[in-house]
Amino acid sequence: MSLSTGLILRLEPLYMSDIKKVVLAYSGGLDTSVIVRWLQDTYNCEVVTFTADLGQGEEVEPARAKAEALGVKEIYIEDLREEFVRDFVFPMFRANTIYEGEYLLGTSIARPLIAKRLIEIANETGADAISHGATGKGNDQIRFELGAYALKPGVAVIAPWREWDLTSRETLMKYCEEHDIPVDFSNKKKKSPYSMDANLLHISYEGDILEDPWAEAEDDMWRWSVSPEEAPDQATYMDLTYEKGDIVAIDGKAMSPATVLEYLNKVGGENGIGRLDIVENRFVGMKSRGCYETPGGTIMLRAHRAIESITLDREAAHLKDELMPRYAKVIYNGFWWSEERKMLQQMIDESQRYVNGDVRLKLYKGNVIVVGRRSEDTLFDESIATFEDDAGSYDQKDAAGFIKLNALRMRIEAGKGRDLS
Amino acid sequence: MSLSTGLILRLEPLYMSDIKKVVLAYSGGLDTSVIVRWLQDTYNCEVVTFTADLGQGEEVEPARAKAEALGVKEIYIEDLREEFVRDFVFPMFRANTIYEGEYLLGTSIARPLIAKRLIEIANETGADAISHGATGKGNDQIRFELGAYALKPGVAVIAPWREWDLTSRETLMKYCEEHDIPVDFSNKKKKSPYSMDANLLHISYEGDILEDPWAEAEDDMWRWSVSPEEAPDQATYMDLTYEKGDIVAIDGKAMSPATVLEYLNKVGGENGIGRLDIVENRFVGMKSRGCYETPGGTIMLRAHRAIESITLDREAAHLKDELMPRYAKVIYNGFWWSEERKMLQQMIDESQRYVNGDVRLKLYKGNVIVVGRRSEDTLFDESIATFEDDAGSYDQKDAAGFIKLNALRMRIEAGKGRDLS
Amino acid sequence: MSLSTGLILRLEPLYMSDIKKVVLAYSGGLDTSVIVRWLQDTYNCEVVTFTADLGQGEEVEPARAKAEALGVKEIYIEDLREEFVRDFVFPMFRANTIYEGEYLLGTSIARPLIAKRLIEIANETGADAISHGATGKGNDQIRFELGAYALKPGVAVIAPWREWDLTSRETLMKYCEEHDIPVDFSNKKKKSPYSMDANLLHISYEGDILEDPWAEAEDDMWRWSVSPEEAPDQATYMDLTYEKGDIVAIDGKAMSPATVLEYLNKVGGENGIGRLDIVENRFVGMKSRGCYETPGGTIMLRAHRAIESITLDREAAHLKDELMPRYAKVIYNGFWWSEERKMLQQMIDESQRYVNGDVRLKLYKGNVIVVGRRSEDTLFDESIATFEDDAGSYDQKDAAGFIKLNALRMRIEAGKGRDLS
Amino acid sequence: MSLSTGLILRLEPLYMSDIKKVVLAYSGGLDTSVIVRWLQDTYNCEVVTFTADLGQGEEVEPARAKAEALGVKEIYIEDLREEFVRDFVFPMFRANTIYEGEYLLGTSIARPLIAKRLIEIANETGADAISHGATGKGNDQIRFELGAYALKPGVAVIAPWREWDLTSRETLMKYCEEHDIPVDFSNKKKKSPYSMDANLLHISYEGDILEDPWAEAEDDMWRWSVSPEEAPDQATYMDLTYEKGDIVAIDGKAMSPATVLEYLNKVGGENGIGRLDIVENRFVGMKSRGCYETPGGTIMLRAHRAIESITLDREAAHLKDELMPRYAKVIYNGFWWSEERKMLQQMIDESQRYVNGDVRLKLYKGNVIVVGRRSEDTLFDESIATFEDDAGSYDQKDAAGFIKLNALRMRIEAGKGRDLS
Repeated sequence: MSLSTGLILRLEPLYMSDIKKVVLAYSGGLDTSVIVRWLQDTYNCEVVTFTADLGQGEEVEPARAKAEALGVKEIYIEDLREEFVRDFVFPMFRANTIYEGEYLLGTSIARPLIAKRLIEIANETGADAISHGATGKGNDQIRFELGAYALKPGVAVIAPWREWDLTSRETLMKYCEEHDIPVDFSNKKKKSPYSMDANLLHISYEGDILEDPWAEAEDDMWRWSVSPEEAPDQATYMDLTYEKGDIVAIDGKAMSPATVLEYLNKVGGENGIGRLDIVENRFVGMKSRGCYETPGGTIMLRAHRAIESITLDREAAHLKDELMPRYAKVIYNGFWWSEERKMLQQMIDESQRYVNGDVRLKLYKGNVIVVGRRSEDTLFDESIATFEDDAGSYDQKDAAGFIKLNALRMRIEAGKGRDLS
Repeated sequence: MSLSTGLILRLEPLYMSDIKKVVLAYSGGLDTSVIVRWLQDTYNCEVVTFTADLGQGEEVEPARAKAEALGVKEIYIEDLREEFVRDFVFPMFRANTIYEGEYLLGTSIARPLIAKRLIEIANETGADAISHGATGKGNDQIRFELGAYALKPGVAVIAPWREWDLTSRETLMKYCEEHDIPVDFSNKKKKSPYSMDANLLHISYEGDILEDPWAEAEDDMWRWSVSPEEAPDQATYMDLTYEKGDIVAIDGKAMSPATVLEYLNKVGGENGIGRLDIVENRFVGMKSRGCYETPGGTIMLRAHRAIESITLDREAAHLKDELMPRYAKVIYNGFWWSEERKMLQQMIDESQRYVNGDVRLKLYKGNVIVVGRRSEDTLFDESIATFEDDAGSYDQKDAAGFIKLNALRMRIEAGKGRDLS
Repeated sequence: MSLSTGLILRLEPLYMSDIKKVVLAYSGGLDTSVIVRWLQDTYNCEVVTFTADLGQGEEVEPARAKAEALGVKEIYIEDLREEFVRDFVFPMFRANTIYEGEYLLGTSIARPLIAKRLIEIANETGADAISHGATGKGNDQIRFELGAYALKPGVAVIAPWREWDLTSRETLMKYCEEHDIPVDFSNKKKKSPYSMDANLLHISYEGDILEDPWAEAEDDMWRWSVSPEEAPDQATYMDLTYEKGDIVAIDGKAMSPATVLEYLNKVGGENGIGRLDIVENRFVGMKSRGCYETPGGTIMLRAHRAIESITLDREAAHLKDELMPRYAKVIYNGFWWSEERKMLQQMIDESQRYVNGDVRLKLYKGNVIVVGRRSEDTLFDESIATFEDDAGSYDQKDAAGFIKLNALRMRIEAGKGRDLS
Repeated sequence: MSLSTGLILRLEPLYMSDIKKVVLAYSGGLDTSVIVRWLQDTYNCEVVTFTADLGQGEEVEPARAKAEALGVKEIYIEDLREEFVRDFVFPMFRANTIYEGEYLLGTSIARPLIAKRLIEIANETGADAISHGATGKGNDQIRFELGAYALKPGVAVIAPWREWDLTSRETLMKYCEEHDIPVDFSNKKKKSPYSMDANLLHISYEGDILEDPWAEAEDDMWRWSVSPEEAPDQATYMDLTYEKGDIVAIDGKAMSPATVLEYLNKVGGENGIGRLDIVENRFVGMKSRGCYETPGGTIMLRAHRAIESITLDREAAHLKDELMPRYAKVIYNGFWWSEERKMLQQMIDESQRYVNGDVRLKLYKGNVIVVGRRSEDTLFDESIATFEDDAGSYDQKDAAGFIKLNALRMRIEAGKGRDLS
């Protein structure tokens, strides 16, 4: 008898009309406030709000009153900064992760944590669905939903932007009026023309004039960093201390993961570091222009490569480099909670056992300059590399045999008359 | 009957004593001048010298008189700058090639061309051996010799630094005296304490205080660029025009490959761009500290990614990114003249068919900032990516199905009780 | 001014009700006959049928009368066997392509050709849509549609199985009665319980008892091969001649691509070769059980590796092996008509320049045994590999240096106290 | 102050004349017996012999008397079969490892264990060197020596075949006479003309007529298996039970790792399974012809893929497949004791957590046929894959969106006029 006869995916075909309770990723802003009301009205269900402090730089506590005003009874407001950096940002940086040669994945890496908490809260509150405010054109819907499905396969997902017809600012404002959504939810200060996302790792900008990739970003768009021009004329030096691939102290002072990143953001931003302006390929198949400020991440990437440069085995480093684009793609596409990410992480983490030591940096007007690296675990051996006498630790004659055997296959081919030029 | 019975590698066991004529990569400097004499004495053979202008920034013509003074009869002095950039540098940059995340392969990419000319000259002059001045600890010996063997499998290679006992400056100078090597061959101006190599792509520094990776490079070491601090306070804007992945014009002015690189070196160096200080892994198995100035290359790398960002298919870009570290390793390790490099190059070149258009850059105190990119072949489609109305070119509801099927395998796994968190 | 302002995807939001003419991949069987009528009724549009002989082993000409009976005016019936093998099967086999270690991609490789012809016929006949009979759970819908979209981006695609409610045999038969679909379209001989697909490369079986992966396939399911038990007691020897990686002659007799594959299928099937029973991962996210008979393909895979074993450079072979799973996935997932497939194909084809020569095989009761390989382009050099005297073509002492430098990085690590065990 | 100033590789330049004691991998055969005496004479040092039972099928105990007769005082004779299969063979098979598409790495995987024991014995006995009987043309010298250097970086290695001049059978026999090496050490029965190596995973044959790759191997060469022709006319069925990717029981009977392999070798060999005849690429750069018998390994490879086919996540499987050739190369080239092997192993082992269940095989005249697989951890879900009603667990309409977004990038490209055909 086969052991595989049972149904695995016992999904009662869940009719959307059956939904009783939904957990919403709630920012407290206008859009997600509209979503609260829209969910209540459309699905006739209870809404649980979840608001997280991931270091976006705005108070999260005000979301409570707003949610209450919308009749929400279960309100989750949490400070996830340490968990975010320790369990998501740091593991990602161990791989020197960059998407498409440029992007430090600031948005991508925050989504799996939000997905995880949405599902945990759904389990705690007995909710059968989750919801979010991401549009149907972007990557974030995918990251939220893949995470949710991976952690709770029978969950229902409601993505209002893919369902409703409130597709313009006007229709949205009209909905507010008609549904008694308090006016002050809408930001009174001049609204940024950009679509933005922020967390402790970065802030991103999309839309408006950025939709023309030939148009230079305006200088007043940027919020976290001064321009290189406005940065101090004096360089800032800094020592970072690594243990197993993670920064544990700066200038000799031990710091928690979130504190490390906050500090690097501050100093990096002051020195004009971490601005990026790119066109990237979304998982949904289109190209999009994005501007990003990642001061701390830009510093961490450079410094991590520097500490690895003296502590990591060559083939380990090359294996990591060859798999990095794939690992980046896994994260960018939203597959953090997957077997392939776990496998890659195991491999990466294994390599970091000896990635300990100090990196000295010079920060100056947008530049992150590595000026020194040292480690008890260094593999750099002056006595071998030296141009001076090496006391016999390396026999130059070995190189002749090394080259001869590396050349053998090509010599045979050329000997057969093959043209290798 | 088998077709494979014959000997492929008909190498008469070539006794070194049988060598009649050797082609030497000759710089005109002291070391390679000593090698000329040492080859004449040790192998009792004729020496042909080959001196190439690869853009190292020093006159090559003076090498003629020096060679003549050493009794050399066949003297080759050649300007290879255009060939170097067109057939080696440009193809490499089509792949956004970087070794170990940092190094732009400035030395590595020049060696295959020198190897090729050494062999071509050996064929022209009837020489049975080639020789070079690279030491037994470095990568260059490998790059010269693999190239030579691949292009002429029966050639003999003489690497004096692996053979002789002139291993200190003193013994070398003594040899000069004893063998009548004109004193003025030795550089009278204060010799740099660094071991350097230069060509149109870069200049490199090794040795001396750099042998301590914690020591910051001294500012007066650098020769091709000002420091970011000393660069102009005013940014320089520049438009680069690409055809099939190569730069063909700057600021609207058509330029040859070598002219492009010379120009970018100049402007880049003036703006403090392209300094690099790393510890790298040599093919011979040790780590070594190197400092590099690559002003033009640093600009080209950034700009090429920018033009690709709007013209290259996503999966083509990702495939290139995943194979780039391997392609870089092939070049770094000296396998330019190999079947695997040809295969990778075919793949890379295929991808560049539509990599046409303009990139606008802002250069400022060490920063290369992409501020615009445009192309007749752009794949960026504002009408799809827009946050505004897209006139039906993208149906957001498609995303729901896209996500559901991407999630299916993980839902099944979670449905079986597997923990994906 | 930006060059990228225009709309790229000028998709008039094509309302399905606007469709005037659709090209259908038509087998002549009951299902696709129902689709003809259903398209005519549902979309009130003209249907063009396209029926191809890809070597499935059934007459295609009878499809003409059936299509005529359904009122079809434009009927395409074509013999594509040579094009199929020459431009799809052979290029794929140059890469030794296998999906998930087992599957020879018999179904996958036929779809791009059908997609291409559907689009070409749509262009010829002025049709604005294509249609096919693949279900919404399988890979084939994807392969057809990705191909169609890649070759004609504005085409509409109608996939009846994803739209209609004729989801059981009963509803389908009822539809036939109600819509005057001639009774004899339904196969009178006892219908196979399996879902099958066939072309010159293979025949596949899915469904019925195969849905239990613990159940052994029944012996009377298989159609193209005898079982190993029933194969002759005498082995069959065969010589295959390769040029640039493709078979051009068998036992010294030149043959066209399709003839090669037909012949190998015949001889392979007689010798019990090419049965496969696997569970594979579909692109849509589920696992499915499939049984396949690929007699000729099984022989070709083994033989191609054999001719490569003596003619291909080692690193070329390894590069191909590392990229093969990815190339297989590209084809399996339906991305034949894509930039990444073109790039990979360029790389693969480059490697086949010298893959010439003969392979001798012994076929016996399911076994494909390589017993000899020879080539004018062989890289196997007895004089070097021999255990006997090699006349100096290889100096064993070179190996010492080769090993020492390969070991250096690990010696340094162990010297630092790292535990590599 | 830098932390990296000290010497890492404190290799007293070890003069070979200083060697006091050497541990030799000793088979008890003529060649390694000559080596014992040659080491004693040449290096004037003490020799420790190490003889291991790795399942090669010959008694190891007789090596004791022979070693004693040669004056050896420290004699190690060990049964390593369980360790060999548990810690080397099984981990390798978790990756479905094959070198160059064919070779199951039978020789390669045994060398790291021997290297490890050589070094452990060197540490126990205070020896400063190790020695082995591998020639300078093969891979085994590399595997032994890389392992030794990785585990004891300061060890000296003596490879007599690279040093001495006993390069023919005659000179070797002459040496025996002159040095009193007992005659009966030489095998009296007709010596096989092949160079062979055996352990529990395989037996290999090289040399003699195999040096012509067009010559078919003679049937009386093979020792572990009958030919398919001579195998029983009745198939053998067998159930293998897996836990975490390793076989733990056969036909319901729990077995230790070595017992599993012994049993599979026996049954496989009886059924004509596991013969292989290939030309492979050695690490030293040449191609060589080898014949291998790997009955148990051939069965294990097929069965492991089968159990993975129902229990492994798709992307995990594909990641493994893409890295497998590299993992195979790492082992083939002798880098088992390296950081990159550890990293890859971590990744592979992570994937095997749920690779549990049963595989049913049919063995018949050289064929290993998978006829069933089942598992408590199966991911095969009949309810989804079925052609019948799936009770709503899969919505076919999702496929439309899935395809549309997968096609988007190609539609945009085609919309720009790019030719993807």
